[in-house]
Amino acid sequence: MESSVPPDVHETVMEATYRALCANGFASLTMQDIADEAEKSTSLLHYHYDTKRDLLVAFLRYLLERFEEKFEDTEDEDPEERLRLLVSRMLPADETTDENRVDESDYDRFGLAILEVRMQAPYEEDYREQLRTNMEVIRSGLANVIEDGIETGAFRDVDPDRTARLIVDALDGARSERVTLDDNDAPTEVAAALDEFVLSSLVTGGDDA
Amino acid sequence: MESSVPPDVHETVMEATYRALCANGFASLTMQDIADEAEKSTSLLHYHYDTKRDLLVAFLRYLLERFEEKFEDTEDEDPEERLRLLVSRMLPADETTDENRVDESDYDRFGLAILEVRMQAPYEEDYREQLRTNMEVIRSGLANVIEDGIETGAFRDVDPDRTARLIVDALDGARSERVTLDDNDAPTEVAAALDEFVLSSLVTGGDDA
Repeated sequence: MESSVPPDVHETVMEATYRALCANGFASLTMQDIADEAEKSTSLLHYHYDTKRDLLVAFLRYLLERFEEKFEDTEDEDPEERLRLLVSRMLPADETTDENRVDESDYDRFGLAILEVRMQAPYEEDYREQLRTNMEVIRSGLANVIEDGIETGAFRDVDPDRTARLIVDALDGARSERVTLDDNDAPTEVAAALDEFVLSSLVTGGDDA
Repeated sequence: MESSVPPDVHETVMEATYRALCANGFASLTMQDIADEAEKSTSLLHYHYDTKRDLLVAFLRYLLERFEEKFEDTEDEDPEERLRLLVSRMLPADETTDENRVDESDYDRFGLAILEVRMQAPYEEDYREQLRTNMEVIRSGLANVIEDGIETGAFRDVDPDRTARLIVDALDGARSERVTLDDNDAPTEVAAALDEFVLSSLVTGGDDA
């Protein structure tokens, strides 16, 4: 949370950053593009976020907070249903991932823009640290759900972190395949395989019990 | 295969391209860099490969041919062992993936360079088509091994293509996480999870039989 930024301004700027990334990608993105989308001045953006890099890091943190909200929304579900919901929310057809998303082409353009940011991570520590944090929080969120399932006896005994990693990295690889190589089926096919090999196999009383 | 290029020249240029990509990455790679590594002139490179783009496409095809050779090397193994060998050959510690590779940092630098090429795929049809072909051939190679296992009764009945996709995309996501976010454990952790959830579960007489 950018504590110094008024919440309504922050939300407006973050939504504008999302739209600007979808429209322009990351490589050529300017503070002016974001200011135009937000209907604010670039001087206001610089006042609140200093540099473009700092604004982008704030945006990555904002994405993580959105994930955390969605994650908390599933709290009342049992572990099996929770895992399924969390996986389906990483897929292109699920609009609940982001209310700003207009259609599937937004998923692709935004996915590509985020990959562009990630390609800068080896050279830009601020991006790298924030992207690592995002991955770790998402992974440990899934791992906690798996751990809950093991504790209640709903799931068999597996390594929660390693299992969460397989889920996150497989979906990440599939999304990257889709947005860079135009292989549209990759995310849904991988989600189906994860359902078969991981989610279903976790459930005690299933095939693996 | 670049049929018009003498095989020894082709091999020299391809190995030089590999070294130049490890040393310089893809974004700033020039024909001069490759010529220097190959100890050839840029005019010879242009004569045989025309443009830098064409040379890079030839290099992606060369990578695929290397995979196909490694794939054929495992032909005498049973399907279970073959799958394990093929997965382990996509990991950082396995030098048999590429004899040119000096150490693990080569894996990272080369992995990053290939991701850079892939980031151009949405805008550059030649890269996109060749990278898609590479992914499809690798995936269908794994799917064929899985199909063999099902036919001989060694594996339970699964969708071979979907299963192969999970393996390839999970390793791809993990490699990308390692090279962009410096998360060194990602490939080995994901390979361990694939072994547990996919490879071991395929074997009839195992947990899932």
